[in-house]
Amino acid sequence: MTTSRPEAPSAKALATQELPKPAPPHGYTARKDEHLKRLRRIEGQIRGLQRMIDEDQYCIDILTQVSAATSALKSFSLELLDEHLNHCVLHAAEHGGQEAVLKVQEASAAVARLVRS
Amino acid sequence: MTTSRPEAPSAKALATQELPKPAPPHGYTARKDEHLKRLRRIEGQIRGLQRMIDEDQYCIDILTQVSAATSALKSFSLELLDEHLNHCVLHAAEHGGQEAVLKVQEASAAVARLVRS
Amino acid sequence: MTTSRPEAPSAKALATQELPKPAPPHGYTARKDEHLKRLRRIEGQIRGLQRMIDEDQYCIDILTQVSAATSALKSFSLELLDEHLNHCVLHAAEHGGQEAVLKVQEASAAVARLVRS
Amino acid sequence: MTTSRPEAPSAKALATQELPKPAPPHGYTARKDEHLKRLRRIEGQIRGLQRMIDEDQYCIDILTQVSAATSALKSFSLELLDEHLNHCVLHAAEHGGQEAVLKVQEASAAVARLVRS
Repeated sequence: MTTSRPEAPSAKALATQELPKPAPPHGYTARKDEHLKRLRRIEGQIRGLQRMIDEDQYCIDILTQVSAATSALKSFSLELLDEHLNHCVLHAAEHGGQEAVLKVQEASAAVARLVRS
Repeated sequence: MTTSRPEAPSAKALATQELPKPAPPHGYTARKDEHLKRLRRIEGQIRGLQRMIDEDQYCIDILTQVSAATSALKSFSLELLDEHLNHCVLHAAEHGGQEAVLKVQEASAAVARLVRS
Repeated sequence: MTTSRPEAPSAKALATQELPKPAPPHGYTARKDEHLKRLRRIEGQIRGLQRMIDEDQYCIDILTQVSAATSALKSFSLELLDEHLNHCVLHAAEHGGQEAVLKVQEASAAVARLVRS
Repeated sequence: MTTSRPEAPSAKALATQELPKPAPPHGYTARKDEHLKRLRRIEGQIRGLQRMIDEDQYCIDILTQVSAATSALKSFSLELLDEHLNHCVLHAAEHGGQEAVLKVQEASAAVARLVRS
């Protein structure tokens, strides 16, 4: 009987729009803990900013802290992109065809958003 | 007599390094609640990123979210800077002299950090 | 009667759009030669890029050169802005009033364009 | 006699460091004319800036023009990068192996320079 696992396909379809997204692990999976640690540090910076505002600290000191958080976010995104290119894009490219082209298109668009953010 | 003015200056000097920082309210004080709300929203975006990493979501979707958080931080800093120029810098400039020059120097350096972050 | 105050405002409005722009010298005038030298160097970089494209040079080498030119333009604009704040904005602020506020508004908008360019 | 051109190989070696660079056409070759036109327009903007400085034009107007030129350079670089990923990186990736990895490394580094420029 095939009554089993009936939702599997639709669940997968739900999770993946537009492009067939590779099943985990992704490029970043191996360094998940490192990424989470980094993001928690950035979250701490954002909370620090709230404390600074709340304590009426000096505008310029707040701006310095905002620049630091922005830099940290950019570094994070550059690393994530690097892993994505090395993992997902290279993997798709090895198989060639339309998927490889779509993956590159997607990565290009992500870089453009990054450069302009 | 009030000739004394004893520890007040040194206490103030202790709290403020380099430049005499204006006592609150700063430029942003009037809109403190609005700024705190904005920062809490950005904090939420950073926590959302952690959840995405934790759930092995797709790299490109994570990058899109990072770009959104970076943009939000930049908008926040532009607003803070605008308030600082309108409040602290204009105020110092009205009194002229060395403090005005130092305030402009400080603001310029903050803009440079922002542009390069 | 208040029918008077005839063309004076509109004539002034005609010559100066939006804000009354200060007569030269501006903040940058003292260092005009230095700025022109810098811009000529950037122009040389852009011409270098054309030569690289023309000679079918390697994409990554071209991108490195584009990043260098972009950095040089940003440095130039930061310096110009610094001079503007020190000269035009401080000058307007010393006289206070609406013009000072407009000058700061204008400078803020310029910073925002810079940060997002 | 020196008719032999014995240095040709070493001259080539000199021009290509580190990675074996693909022979032309590169990713951008097909659109060379379009790229050259774009760069000439940017060169015109830089020359316009020199004229503005020379004519003592208003700082803020110059800054607006600098932002426009910076934006144009960024768009140019994003397009070049897109072509590079589609052409050189995909091509290398199809063949797999060490060269693909190096190409991705190189592209990642170029994106980082771009994001931080």
